Amino acid sequence: MNPSTHRQRLLLNCDMGESFGNWRTGLDAEVMPFVDCANIACGYHAGDPGTMRRTVALALEHGVSIGAHPAYPDLNGFGRRSMACSSEEIRDLLHYQIGALDGICKVLGGRVAYVKPHGALYNDMMADPRQLRTVLEAVAAYEAGLPLMLMATADDSAAQALGEEVGVPLWFEAFADRAYTASGHLVSRRLPGAVHHDPALVVEQAVRLARGEALVADDGSALRLNAATLCVHGDNESSVAAVRQIREALDALQA
Amino acid sequence: MNPSTHRQRLLLNCDMGESFGNWRTGLDAEVMPFVDCANIACGYHAGDPGTMRRTVALALEHGVSIGAHPAYPDLNGFGRRSMACSSEEIRDLLHYQIGALDGICKVLGGRVAYVKPHGALYNDMMADPRQLRTVLEAVAAYEAGLPLMLMATADDSAAQALGEEVGVPLWFEAFADRAYTASGHLVSRRLPGAVHHDPALVVEQAVRLARGEALVADDGSALRLNAATLCVHGDNESSVAAVRQIREALDALQA
Amino acid sequence: MNPSTHRQRLLLNCDMGESFGNWRTGLDAEVMPFVDCANIACGYHAGDPGTMRRTVALALEHGVSIGAHPAYPDLNGFGRRSMACSSEEIRDLLHYQIGALDGICKVLGGRVAYVKPHGALYNDMMADPRQLRTVLEAVAAYEAGLPLMLMATADDSAAQALGEEVGVPLWFEAFADRAYTASGHLVSRRLPGAVHHDPALVVEQAVRLARGEALVADDGSALRLNAATLCVHGDNESSVAAVRQIREALDALQA
Amino acid sequence: MNPSTHRQRLLLNCDMGESFGNWRTGLDAEVMPFVDCANIACGYHAGDPGTMRRTVALALEHGVSIGAHPAYPDLNGFGRRSMACSSEEIRDLLHYQIGALDGICKVLGGRVAYVKPHGALYNDMMADPRQLRTVLEAVAAYEAGLPLMLMATADDSAAQALGEEVGVPLWFEAFADRAYTASGHLVSRRLPGAVHHDPALVVEQAVRLARGEALVADDGSALRLNAATLCVHGDNESSVAAVRQIREALDALQA
Repeated sequence: MNPSTHRQRLLLNCDMGESFGNWRTGLDAEVMPFVDCANIACGYHAGDPGTMRRTVALALEHGVSIGAHPAYPDLNGFGRRSMACSSEEIRDLLHYQIGALDGICKVLGGRVAYVKPHGALYNDMMADPRQLRTVLEAVAAYEAGLPLMLMATADDSAAQALGEEVGVPLWFEAFADRAYTASGHLVSRRLPGAVHHDPALVVEQAVRLARGEALVADDGSALRLNAATLCVHGDNESSVAAVRQIREALDALQA
Repeated sequence: MNPSTHRQRLLLNCDMGESFGNWRTGLDAEVMPFVDCANIACGYHAGDPGTMRRTVALALEHGVSIGAHPAYPDLNGFGRRSMACSSEEIRDLLHYQIGALDGICKVLGGRVAYVKPHGALYNDMMADPRQLRTVLEAVAAYEAGLPLMLMATADDSAAQALGEEVGVPLWFEAFADRAYTASGHLVSRRLPGAVHHDPALVVEQAVRLARGEALVADDGSALRLNAATLCVHGDNESSVAAVRQIREALDALQA
Repeated sequence: MNPSTHRQRLLLNCDMGESFGNWRTGLDAEVMPFVDCANIACGYHAGDPGTMRRTVALALEHGVSIGAHPAYPDLNGFGRRSMACSSEEIRDLLHYQIGALDGICKVLGGRVAYVKPHGALYNDMMADPRQLRTVLEAVAAYEAGLPLMLMATADDSAAQALGEEVGVPLWFEAFADRAYTASGHLVSRRLPGAVHHDPALVVEQAVRLARGEALVADDGSALRLNAATLCVHGDNESSVAAVRQIREALDALQA
Repeated sequence: MNPSTHRQRLLLNCDMGESFGNWRTGLDAEVMPFVDCANIACGYHAGDPGTMRRTVALALEHGVSIGAHPAYPDLNGFGRRSMACSSEEIRDLLHYQIGALDGICKVLGGRVAYVKPHGALYNDMMADPRQLRTVLEAVAAYEAGLPLMLMATADDSAAQALGEEVGVPLWFEAFADRAYTASGHLVSRRLPGAVHHDPALVVEQAVRLARGEALVADDGSALRLNAATLCVHGDNESSVAAVRQIREALDALQA
């Protein structure tokens, strides 16, 4: 029996709307047709109001779910520098950014369907259970049932318990283009082999994740990730090509 | 027959939430009990997410209507410097700011009940019918029936026609502490007598406006303003005292 | 007798350092070898401290003069939206930005050698003599003898008189890739023929300007521009190629 | 023999220019006559160009030394939130801010005479020797001999060694209004007795520090701080009054 028949379809999510004013980045229009979920920047690390509107319109045109992609307030650092914010500050900046994107969605007939923190805010949330709780509580306070996208690891039980306690559905994401450690964390980019450059390898890892099959961690052990979604990238032509191949491979699984 | 029995109660509106981070301005807590409508800054000229949350909470506690108070993106200039934004840019920055405030309201069980542009954005809207149309269309696009607060003048017919065309209820506001020209514009602050410093005079002008009686313009002519709301100020102890006196005088009218 | 022997060499100036954080724009490294003057963004419309340092280092490496390229405070609008700043505000924002770039230059053994306002600040300065005076006085106050780069027109006498009064050397710039009106202003980009796309035409216009020969304005009249420098662009491969051709043509004139 | 005759005069330093645009904070004009050194905000946590100019002018008027008071880029958090900046980023943001202030000083006939990092940047520098080295190297690169103001502790030998290695004079500062631990760190504000509210106690501690006498740490031990300067505050009337009393007490020591 094919395990995929027992599973949800593996969704493809992609960071979008990360231009700012005159500066353009990301091939959003090219990659949008192949993804399910667009994580849209909300103005704190990238994404001005006009960019947000154009990106939301593009997502709606392609029937793609819209996720808020909030960040620390750090345009210069692209939200990649951790900032020592209090729980209250994190909650408030989440609500501000989610609300701003939701306002733009509302005008265009859409809505924020989930939340995925960006950059250092995402990393800090994964590294610190108190910050994960803060984010979960903020998402729950914004809207009952609104899901949070976060990183799948070998043992998601603590996050699962927190999500259930707070009442937030969790969408765990995995990566097809990255090597994993045995604990289900990404191998540091500073180490050799951290990023898969061979498209065949990327597609293979995507298919394994879609089938619920184990990956091989960097120590050779089997790593099972309970991923509902796969994070893909629209930065350049080759990453868009990879997304297209992943999309086709996953569609073939469903057929 | 008392003309006030034929009229809506004159609402008091006040700019609020204009602190930013460590910088505090405005006696919001002191003035909130006496007003009907709080125009809350949305982060572009003042008002960070934490300030917005505290101000929304205060408004809800006192049953005060919450208005979005969006501005040009200009913290350093407090939104008082006109910026040559395109119609598209104005629409987008309105939706972003209204949405952000609405998000914070939603968390606390409230909602944005009207929109009042701030500073140079307000002035430009009053001076340029194309910009007024842009603002009206943006407000209508955000939510059907959401009112816009704008300035009452001697002849509001053009604004009225635009509001009806676009489908936006208009809440005209007047000032009790300012002298008016015959056309119903404020006498420039650079001219003597532009601002009423005598509290009795301020209260008298508020009562006239509430009764729908004409004011005396700076050229001695009678000026009738069709004001639904009065703009009051919570900047300091004396302005809060004035608001309290106006509140009492208006309440006495209703009794 | 060749008129060029009586003239200063026509310098090539180019906007540089207009990246911001993670967003990269402009082929600065490719175009730097072919220009004389780098107009370096100072953080208000583009250019964070790291970008400024890298751009200054690149300019020093190629012996290129460093100009401060200050702007209105408007990252989102890339400094292209006019802002209603007071003279005092313009003076202060010029000193802040020039000083910031000068600080970074000082660390690397360079200095700010001239000032060229950016975008809307440049346009407003050219359109309003009072604002030109404000800019000139600010430049003079920063450093005696520091030149201002501004636009050459058919009649520069008013600017010349102001520059002499205030004591600021003026470096007038012209464009090789733009059509001119009879008054020496750029034909609006909205009109056909405003921008020269034929590289041969661009080089020809550059050579005419270098020789002090008249151009043909859009009404067929002869237009003589007293240009000390030519504004070139490093936005993309084709503009860099054009700069290289201009450089070669101008070098050939000197030979 | 009076130990003070062997010592440098204890300088009073005070954070200044921490207003921003429309928001005013700090009684700079009131406190300036009583201090020796003004730590002037440079636009990243507070202090816009206009505020900087006014504060520099005030300092020059009173013959007060001007220090650059650079911070992490965080207006909303007033520079009090640590940010994970790289050494390169810290160096660049220091040079940008010092340069900007120096530019404004230059226009008014002054110069930046020392550097004192603000808030979280100061705390991180004191907590992490690598960051202290980064700051020292950045200060040295800006200008040979430019001093750094930092916190005196019970054992300054590591900082002293670093300062000598890099060639930066160190101005150690102490606090008259704070209780100290035995290691010469400030008792956390969350603990009782952390802040001296009795003016007499504050003046006494200032005098002890000026005389080079030991303080009593919170565990009762004697704490000797090698302080060249005392950090005082101009936040409100009572802190200005305290500065005035300290000034008078220190002047009496010199008499």
